[in-house]
Amino acid sequence: MTTNTYLDHATAALTQLRQQVPLVHCITNNVVTNFTANALLALGATPAMTDIPGEAGLFAQMASCLLVNLGTPTPVQAEAALEAAQAARAAGTPWVLDPVAVGVLPIRTALARQLLELRPDIIRGNPSEILALAGQGQGGRGVDATHSVAQAEQAAMALAQQYGSVVAVSGAVDFLTDGQRQVRLANGTPLLTRVTGGGCALGAVLAAFAALHEDRLASSVAAVLVYTVAAQMAAAQADRPGSFAVQFLDALASVQASHLRQWADIRVA
Amino acid sequence: MTTNTYLDHATAALTQLRQQVPLVHCITNNVVTNFTANALLALGATPAMTDIPGEAGLFAQMASCLLVNLGTPTPVQAEAALEAAQAARAAGTPWVLDPVAVGVLPIRTALARQLLELRPDIIRGNPSEILALAGQGQGGRGVDATHSVAQAEQAAMALAQQYGSVVAVSGAVDFLTDGQRQVRLANGTPLLTRVTGGGCALGAVLAAFAALHEDRLASSVAAVLVYTVAAQMAAAQADRPGSFAVQFLDALASVQASHLRQWADIRVA
Amino acid sequence: MTTNTYLDHATAALTQLRQQVPLVHCITNNVVTNFTANALLALGATPAMTDIPGEAGLFAQMASCLLVNLGTPTPVQAEAALEAAQAARAAGTPWVLDPVAVGVLPIRTALARQLLELRPDIIRGNPSEILALAGQGQGGRGVDATHSVAQAEQAAMALAQQYGSVVAVSGAVDFLTDGQRQVRLANGTPLLTRVTGGGCALGAVLAAFAALHEDRLASSVAAVLVYTVAAQMAAAQADRPGSFAVQFLDALASVQASHLRQWADIRVA
Repeated sequence: MTTNTYLDHATAALTQLRQQVPLVHCITNNVVTNFTANALLALGATPAMTDIPGEAGLFAQMASCLLVNLGTPTPVQAEAALEAAQAARAAGTPWVLDPVAVGVLPIRTALARQLLELRPDIIRGNPSEILALAGQGQGGRGVDATHSVAQAEQAAMALAQQYGSVVAVSGAVDFLTDGQRQVRLANGTPLLTRVTGGGCALGAVLAAFAALHEDRLASSVAAVLVYTVAAQMAAAQADRPGSFAVQFLDALASVQASHLRQWADIRVA
Repeated sequence: MTTNTYLDHATAALTQLRQQVPLVHCITNNVVTNFTANALLALGATPAMTDIPGEAGLFAQMASCLLVNLGTPTPVQAEAALEAAQAARAAGTPWVLDPVAVGVLPIRTALARQLLELRPDIIRGNPSEILALAGQGQGGRGVDATHSVAQAEQAAMALAQQYGSVVAVSGAVDFLTDGQRQVRLANGTPLLTRVTGGGCALGAVLAAFAALHEDRLASSVAAVLVYTVAAQMAAAQADRPGSFAVQFLDALASVQASHLRQWADIRVA
Repeated sequence: MTTNTYLDHATAALTQLRQQVPLVHCITNNVVTNFTANALLALGATPAMTDIPGEAGLFAQMASCLLVNLGTPTPVQAEAALEAAQAARAAGTPWVLDPVAVGVLPIRTALARQLLELRPDIIRGNPSEILALAGQGQGGRGVDATHSVAQAEQAAMALAQQYGSVVAVSGAVDFLTDGQRQVRLANGTPLLTRVTGGGCALGAVLAAFAALHEDRLASSVAAVLVYTVAAQMAAAQADRPGSFAVQFLDALASVQASHLRQWADIRVA
């Protein structure tokens, strides 16, 4: 696929998302539930945070897609995450794993390994998380990466090949791979790192786009492109984090194909 | 009561709320705690989210009113919800049940049935939730309704009569009943459905107004009117969800009797 | 120390914080996680909400500082809080206790007493919480104080002396003491009380500044000064709570030494 093929896919997927309104099942950390739900609503999807055992598995079968984010994995939520991922796997619901701070802390690291065996359709993380998940690093500094995206590219390729996942590594230039193809996206703004959930909400958006199309890499490129172009639109309106977060939600609601075509910086290896 | 009687009650209640500053005990889902608290603070009430067993019951006795919202009912929170509702019932603290996604998911559905037996003063939900609670439907699509308000009116009447509750059905035109009287309110804006907690925070505002007056239907009409007129004021300032949410909190702080008189669209059957 | 010494310390500490980017471990209530994280990110620190047993203790050793806020202490979080405070104490990680609604509710009151024995570096509360913690009152009205700062000064002095802590009492004029020295700060705005987490996020900022310097009182004065001057900057831009919260995050990102020098109202006893 060429840069233009990815871009065409993204513009079509954005239209499709707003027509189909995917129901995004989110099991995510207690810091970003609100921002994640608002990002999905602004974009045109429907969020639902069903994160208790006995409900999470049932809901993962009904939902269009699932996000499992390990930011604050209480015992109850961890059990719900496993139940949901198993149900998603069985039902064919596409699902995203966001292994927040994996490698740094033991409980989520063990949980991430269990979840990996359920073969997430997409894995999203910062470079340190991707390295740790691939067994090649000790994780970052809390939730922050201490490695560059370039340092994590081989680990991303290995993970993608081993688990049949698309791996999306977030950074100044995002790197996405399905183990064969490689795509780099240079959109976005550093302001996304000054708002909590800037990365976590992307995981939910990756899930929403995965619900639309079988080509998980093309859908993931679409998700990252829409998200980071909206962030650039917001950064053009606001240069401080409080205002930026508000403008970003507005931009997710107003981003159109024309903005993608104007701003996209997609590089196909 | 006539349209004008409800309107007069609402303007008086708004003044009274800001003088009395009711203490609103909220047991609510982890997506909307922040927005709910900010909505109450903006309006002029005091929120407190006491949702653990051993404290929830005590606090429901001290508080002016209680909201129980079933959006993310962990085992610990479910136990606290029952404890609080029992204490509220015993102490005469008015309380509101918001049965989020009831009918769709089993644990909250069973919990909602237990809570119903404690006779909530007010039940607030979307049409699918009200139908499911009345045993007349399977619930909606996650947190979204798949039925119209009109389809849920008979179920709302039946629930109100059976449990002695006021039932408030949210939609483009809200329907409220105490089992005898029927009121429809046509205020609000679709933007409220693009911000997470747009419905959940109304549950807390219904509780706050219930603390002020014995006529639960008139108080509920006041709550819905103040809330939806503030939403319209915000929508006049902002047409995208991020900015709208900010303007909505501002409007809850600034809405006055004159705005209610100017915008109110109350229809008494 | 004189007013000018405190002011010089504060301006130096603000620069230092943005250079060092302290990693702030927060165990806090589910209402304010998002706002707290965003306040820290805006200011220039890195938040991490690691609040499960088995991880909280390990993380408290890695982090620059720790906040323990008792707003919604589930059994799991309470266990994590004790684990983290013990680890912080053992590792020399400075830590802050924010005893939300202590005295009003029994479980958090017992937990606060256990945590006190682990000798927090800083205790932050409203006057009623400080009185209750010192055994001199029954707490406030939910999360709100029913006592004035002046009424809590002796209790603050006693607590500071008994536990070797700095005690920061929040109010229109904040009072800070290490048991010997006394400082009053008259910055801030009532709008901070109209946004949920206005007090709770200050606890996290107190932790961030405590990571920078051994003089806990001077660092606490710096934290309160930066926080309340940013609030005044925001209040100059917005007079309603929704807009104020956005402006406040922007102001935390943009507050500089010059603003502190212009606005500071520090009174040394």
